[in-house]
Amino acid sequence: MASELKVVPLGGLGEFGMNMLALESGDDMILVDAGVLFPSTDDLGIDAIVPDLSYVLQHREKLRGLVLTHGHLDHIGGIPYLLEQVDVPIYGTAFTLGLVRKQLSEFSLLKPPHLSTIRAGQELQLGCFGVEGIHVTHSTLQCLALAISTPVGCVLHTGDFKVDQTPVDGRIFDFEAFAEYGKRGVVLLLADSTNADVPGFSDSERSVGGVLDGIFSTAESALFFTCFSSAIHRVQQVVDRAVAHRRKLAMVGRSLDTACHIAMNLGLLRIPAGTLVDQRVLESYPRRDRVTLIAGSQGEPRSSLTRAALGKHRWARIEEGDIVGFSAKMIPGNEKPILRVVDNLHRLGAKVLYGDVCPGLHVSGHPCREELKLILNLVRPKYFVPIHGEYRQLAQHRALAQEVRGDDLGKAFILENGSVLHLDEYGARVLPDRVPVGRRLIDSGTRSEVIRPSAVRERRRLAEFGVLVPVVTIDGDSGRDVEVEILDRGFAVSGGSQKLLKGAHAVIRDSVLTTSRRQLADVAFMEDKIRDDCRRYLARKTDRQSQPLILPILLES
Amino acid sequence: MASELKVVPLGGLGEFGMNMLALESGDDMILVDAGVLFPSTDDLGIDAIVPDLSYVLQHREKLRGLVLTHGHLDHIGGIPYLLEQVDVPIYGTAFTLGLVRKQLSEFSLLKPPHLSTIRAGQELQLGCFGVEGIHVTHSTLQCLALAISTPVGCVLHTGDFKVDQTPVDGRIFDFEAFAEYGKRGVVLLLADSTNADVPGFSDSERSVGGVLDGIFSTAESALFFTCFSSAIHRVQQVVDRAVAHRRKLAMVGRSLDTACHIAMNLGLLRIPAGTLVDQRVLESYPRRDRVTLIAGSQGEPRSSLTRAALGKHRWARIEEGDIVGFSAKMIPGNEKPILRVVDNLHRLGAKVLYGDVCPGLHVSGHPCREELKLILNLVRPKYFVPIHGEYRQLAQHRALAQEVRGDDLGKAFILENGSVLHLDEYGARVLPDRVPVGRRLIDSGTRSEVIRPSAVRERRRLAEFGVLVPVVTIDGDSGRDVEVEILDRGFAVSGGSQKLLKGAHAVIRDSVLTTSRRQLADVAFMEDKIRDDCRRYLARKTDRQSQPLILPILLES
Repeated sequence: MASELKVVPLGGLGEFGMNMLALESGDDMILVDAGVLFPSTDDLGIDAIVPDLSYVLQHREKLRGLVLTHGHLDHIGGIPYLLEQVDVPIYGTAFTLGLVRKQLSEFSLLKPPHLSTIRAGQELQLGCFGVEGIHVTHSTLQCLALAISTPVGCVLHTGDFKVDQTPVDGRIFDFEAFAEYGKRGVVLLLADSTNADVPGFSDSERSVGGVLDGIFSTAESALFFTCFSSAIHRVQQVVDRAVAHRRKLAMVGRSLDTACHIAMNLGLLRIPAGTLVDQRVLESYPRRDRVTLIAGSQGEPRSSLTRAALGKHRWARIEEGDIVGFSAKMIPGNEKPILRVVDNLHRLGAKVLYGDVCPGLHVSGHPCREELKLILNLVRPKYFVPIHGEYRQLAQHRALAQEVRGDDLGKAFILENGSVLHLDEYGARVLPDRVPVGRRLIDSGTRSEVIRPSAVRERRRLAEFGVLVPVVTIDGDSGRDVEVEILDRGFAVSGGSQKLLKGAHAVIRDSVLTTSRRQLADVAFMEDKIRDDCRRYLARKTDRQSQPLILPILLES
Repeated sequence: MASELKVVPLGGLGEFGMNMLALESGDDMILVDAGVLFPSTDDLGIDAIVPDLSYVLQHREKLRGLVLTHGHLDHIGGIPYLLEQVDVPIYGTAFTLGLVRKQLSEFSLLKPPHLSTIRAGQELQLGCFGVEGIHVTHSTLQCLALAISTPVGCVLHTGDFKVDQTPVDGRIFDFEAFAEYGKRGVVLLLADSTNADVPGFSDSERSVGGVLDGIFSTAESALFFTCFSSAIHRVQQVVDRAVAHRRKLAMVGRSLDTACHIAMNLGLLRIPAGTLVDQRVLESYPRRDRVTLIAGSQGEPRSSLTRAALGKHRWARIEEGDIVGFSAKMIPGNEKPILRVVDNLHRLGAKVLYGDVCPGLHVSGHPCREELKLILNLVRPKYFVPIHGEYRQLAQHRALAQEVRGDDLGKAFILENGSVLHLDEYGARVLPDRVPVGRRLIDSGTRSEVIRPSAVRERRRLAEFGVLVPVVTIDGDSGRDVEVEILDRGFAVSGGSQKLLKGAHAVIRDSVLTTSRRQLADVAFMEDKIRDDCRRYLARKTDRQSQPLILPILLES
């Protein structure tokens, strides 16, 4: 059989979150990343969303490993749900695996997971695939791009990255490796598209330090900063200023504390002895000698910062004159809860640094257009697939690749989840058939269970229009003595809808009285009839297509 | 009785939307604005939110008029719901009242409304209040600040404004009037806080023209622009470029068409003959000779642009190579639907100008911090109340006023909806008691009906956990022959929750079997007991406080 490769995105294209990519060749398959997508505020009752694994399960005997690019949840948060269904060895850097271990400890797994640490520069053989991690700069620690040697040539997957020329830890983006692979020949480049619609270069992580200097130099009361828990470079910069300005530092929030301790144990976050104290101890220092790193940058309802902003946190107390800095992106969809926290902090009299009030307090961890051009020119791939973005970013990244590489680019493809890109000696093309993909919705009740998609629709209708339960009692002898009671929740919400409910009453009585004796005995038929008549009546009266859920109950007395 | 004034915000403080302010003195009361608040995507089944009017109704015999500052829906959208409850004369500029008339035509009012046109510079006597409109620049036409003479002195209400030094229509912000009132003495200034957290000056509306010039000069196919329907200055700038570049122009979308025609009839929007054509006619011109203004800048599901982006609009067809420009703010909360439209436009192959891709294509209509300082120094008020903002903007605007005016400022107050600011010869203070305020939720079923707040909670729970209807049939004679059936919607959504449902079955049987004969006869008691036992069981099993709605039905056979 001639050599061939299939590249199949299972999640993360056309959406931000649940990144997962399969590479398949002959009898071997590997996965890159296994992320989660967080539900939006109108996805009620859903804890998390992860990719459908039908395709992986179908080829489980080929599965040689899962390679992780870095430790953000949109790249590792789906691992527990993956391991529930398939046993697969997992490879990642020490910091990434530290986060994975912590996450797995909250689930009861059937088997102990197989976790193997890899480093940038190290090669790994997984079936026919040779995988080498390449160090890239990003907003968390030990992030890898992956150079994957396959039977059809080298595939380069950037993972999430930015080109930071002055990283906080001094570890420069590995331009040499990118250039070297480019020189040797890369058949396919898959690259991060998050900021493909943002012109210019991203600011260096180090530039946040300058902004912190200004804040620390002038602050006269307690300081609070919130950031993503895995943003260890950011944490290090706050720590360094705390030391310079002789403030004691506390960490509040489990996720932050966990990530920082993993980094400290690996020697990747350095806090001099005597600086880090418990929040309860911090309270005994004068306010101007305090700084608190606190979890909750996205306004999560149960986070430490959300509670502190309501004056409800036991230890973290924010008072008039304190400064609270948001050192994180507002993830689209989270603006409202975040801004509610900002409002509450103002109510406490704090000075709040967020958005336009202090724009330099956060920088993106993803590459802007000029950085994307640089990568394209370093790697000079034959084929190109933009990844990690919604459709608009993928489209703009593809156009950028065409502009930069011109006729030297064989082709750039916009794939969607489930698309199969097929590469062989004749070139690359998208196969006509897609593999099954989809979203598994994790029930917030049972945690690990998957919700039927139809249930989501049902719940949405319940939320919009409520539910009616017509209880209809028919005298079994005459069939003419009818009692109707309608229970309702979330329907008769106003004077007008109460009138509708009365009307429905009459409609149901009529519905029963105009039915023949023979049909009356058919409970299923009658329940359908009552539901239909009721629905038609409501549709006519309200002039809308959607209606409440109607659950008729028929009884014979 | 000594002179006094009460200033009572009924909506719009601590929120963006449903602006309404009452001024009351002796036997007279006037209202400034009557706006609507649009529900967010998770407020299912709600059409609109307007202020509770209890306070207005309580004092209806004092009500002398409603004065409108301008025609945006957050200032006029509540009028139909106000007129349903109280008959009040309404005053506004010609353009504002044109929009009000259009809006009222969609409701069946009991009485014809009393609408009177006012102009900037004209004085109006409403009971003891003298009201003069002052021309201000903003993102729509004929906007007024209000100088209100009251028994305790002059109150200046800025309405919504920006300080545009080069307005498109050449009508400069009336600095003179502000300065003149400042000189004569203003006891209270109420000012727009929307951008109190944005440093600097807002860009002039005219700067958008420069960006449009660039787009029109280089575009080689059809052009589409979307903006707020009342943004007539924006429309005029597109029209001017269409004329200069000899493109034909069409307007698509009812709201846009309506607002533009109101402006054209008033001579406030000028389109040379031969430029404006019907969209169906536009299609007969070469693509490079076309420009379409299309409604739907907020990704509204039924808007023209949303449908066109899906290829489903009958007349507005967008093709590869066309340019679609978003010339409007993304209102917080609308990001997701807007970006979905942007994605779909990319799928059609259009070049889309939005956000960072083309930042100059929209400018804000509200004042930034330097403009706010200018107003404070022109007006030099004794007291200050920031309005039109969430708490964070109000707090920052208050701090700004204190910084600018120093000891010359008597006091700055942050009011919340329902707060009463009392002014008399001794000064200004907030009264200890608030007046009743709240939100009236307009049912999307019956359109004009108000939803009980408890119903919203019910619907939210339905959406999160679903509903269970345990139907329990008990043999009346023995009380021991129990049949249990549980209907569910949106609950048993997964394997785990189906198991829970089975468990609940057993719990309910036990609940009945362990009850005494006497209590069994008490239907209400038994239904409560079944509900409680069921809830306790689910709480124990799922380890969460909230549970599905449970509606037990008890029957005797």
